[in-house]
Amino acid sequence: MTENRQIQITSMPKDKLGLEHFDLVVSDRPSPGPGEILCRTLYLSLDPANRAWMQGATYRSALQSGQVMAGFTLAEVVESNDPEFSIGDLVEGDGGWQDYFVKTGRHLTRRTRQEPLTHLVSVFGVTGRTAHYGMAGIGKPVAGETVVVSAAAGATGSVAGQIAKLKGARVVGIAGGPEKCQRLQDEFGFDAAIDYKNENLFKALKAHCPDGIDLYFDNVGGPTLEAVLFRMNLHGRIICCGVVSQYDTGNPDPGPRGVPGLLVTKRLTMRGFIVGDDADLMAGVDSDLAEWVANGSIKVAEDVVEGLENAPAGLIGLLAGDNFGKRMVKVS
Amino acid sequence: MTENRQIQITSMPKDKLGLEHFDLVVSDRPSPGPGEILCRTLYLSLDPANRAWMQGATYRSALQSGQVMAGFTLAEVVESNDPEFSIGDLVEGDGGWQDYFVKTGRHLTRRTRQEPLTHLVSVFGVTGRTAHYGMAGIGKPVAGETVVVSAAAGATGSVAGQIAKLKGARVVGIAGGPEKCQRLQDEFGFDAAIDYKNENLFKALKAHCPDGIDLYFDNVGGPTLEAVLFRMNLHGRIICCGVVSQYDTGNPDPGPRGVPGLLVTKRLTMRGFIVGDDADLMAGVDSDLAEWVANGSIKVAEDVVEGLENAPAGLIGLLAGDNFGKRMVKVS
Repeated sequence: MTENRQIQITSMPKDKLGLEHFDLVVSDRPSPGPGEILCRTLYLSLDPANRAWMQGATYRSALQSGQVMAGFTLAEVVESNDPEFSIGDLVEGDGGWQDYFVKTGRHLTRRTRQEPLTHLVSVFGVTGRTAHYGMAGIGKPVAGETVVVSAAAGATGSVAGQIAKLKGARVVGIAGGPEKCQRLQDEFGFDAAIDYKNENLFKALKAHCPDGIDLYFDNVGGPTLEAVLFRMNLHGRIICCGVVSQYDTGNPDPGPRGVPGLLVTKRLTMRGFIVGDDADLMAGVDSDLAEWVANGSIKVAEDVVEGLENAPAGLIGLLAGDNFGKRMVKVS
Repeated sequence: MTENRQIQITSMPKDKLGLEHFDLVVSDRPSPGPGEILCRTLYLSLDPANRAWMQGATYRSALQSGQVMAGFTLAEVVESNDPEFSIGDLVEGDGGWQDYFVKTGRHLTRRTRQEPLTHLVSVFGVTGRTAHYGMAGIGKPVAGETVVVSAAAGATGSVAGQIAKLKGARVVGIAGGPEKCQRLQDEFGFDAAIDYKNENLFKALKAHCPDGIDLYFDNVGGPTLEAVLFRMNLHGRIICCGVVSQYDTGNPDPGPRGVPGLLVTKRLTMRGFIVGDDADLMAGVDSDLAEWVANGSIKVAEDVVEGLENAPAGLIGLLAGDNFGKRMVKVS
């Protein structure tokens, strides 16, 4: 096989992302230059942040039309001009939405093969690590506290909520639709779940958090954050992990009411983070996750889409909340 | 003198506070019951928070029409049925807008007489303590950092900015009008000052904070907070002290754009506080302030209104930003 399928951005979305913003292009398989490594994509991670990268510069420069769509991948080395990497090595990196990509070694991270491979993209990948880093490392829930997690059926939220349970907290998830809410309680051990699409958030938070909220792990921002703010306890903490409610739009909403007023009167702390900034907080992440998955304390939810050509629809559906758990694309 | 002038709330403001919401009523001087203490108001503190108390419950229950307007006072004991308090003792407490009030000892805090007495209301009172607690205790600026303070010509902001200067930071104040900005630089040692009424905040922040903003001490919220958010450095801290831009209204604005999105991408922390919550942070506050005022490191700005009858106009003007430094009313 000498061809390389790529999904390119044909135009930037002005409002909601659609299939019309992507095109599948077949080009030649690239060849690695001196010191470079050719990788074959196995799994492509789909993340709400992919859409945020199209809105403007974030922690990376903004995406542009004409580019291959960016995305985090699990891949294997098929040709190497770097003595540190051998054919068959498993690596991860921002390979983008394509069958093959060329990188230098410093843009790749080696991973150890394990079964199932998908766990390297989900619970042992960026989203699982983010959940641990943000919840255990920054949020630090303690026994008896009430913890709320939004996008609780998502890749990060489902793990973050289970970690809070492990720490002895009472955990309330917010998710869209009755099926997700049922699964969170039945399979993932959440104490309660709120269906934000069909319930009044203010009333449901009051009902399910009778002692108020001590810690909120926020993946969504917007009206959900606003409703939670009004239910926070004195000295509560809000961990800001993502803002999925504001990614798929050209016109983000203003911020929630109560900022900064409720932060003052309730003495709240809001803290944003990106996984990995603090090496000390990263130290125990991988070993903890491995242990918790091995002993069954954390259940892993995955949602695998087959075929690179389905990546655009997969991302669009993710932004609409179609997934339960970590959505990824099996490329080869 | 056996009469007691009181300023009562006659109706709750629906939008901006006006003189029509207050009435001066003359009643009899109260008598202290068993264990109670009669106090004569010397100085009445005017604070933007007084208006917030009319919007709803905060860290205290909401004010109601028919009540004597609440307010923090410096007073002296004129009659005491509590052996712990003697005639002539200087005390502070929420005496309200009136000549005389009766309290039990646990609602009064003893203060030591000093000259000028006004310093007990300004730099050694709630606003000066708030500035120290929030800036030195929570914000912890270090040498070389860029610190921005809003309402910088106010009672808290003027002290907070000077404390950041003492810690070696570059300090940029935001205030309303060219005179305030000039005084902040000429008399109070600010490195720069931005006139938010006459300058474009985004451009001015860029010009005066060429290395970005590490620490923002926020007294105002609203559009100022929004502009600062976009200029914050990675891992910056925002200390939420007050929200004066949103107090004098019945229809507060939504929160700033960028919350929580910029908190995530820039890994920011926003923290609200009320002075005194943490005894450890309070420990050095009074001694530091005394030393800094004595050695001239901190200049004290006061704005004294004469006469209880002028308290309503004084508060209305304070909310409009008429003051430079701590506004208080000399009652007797």
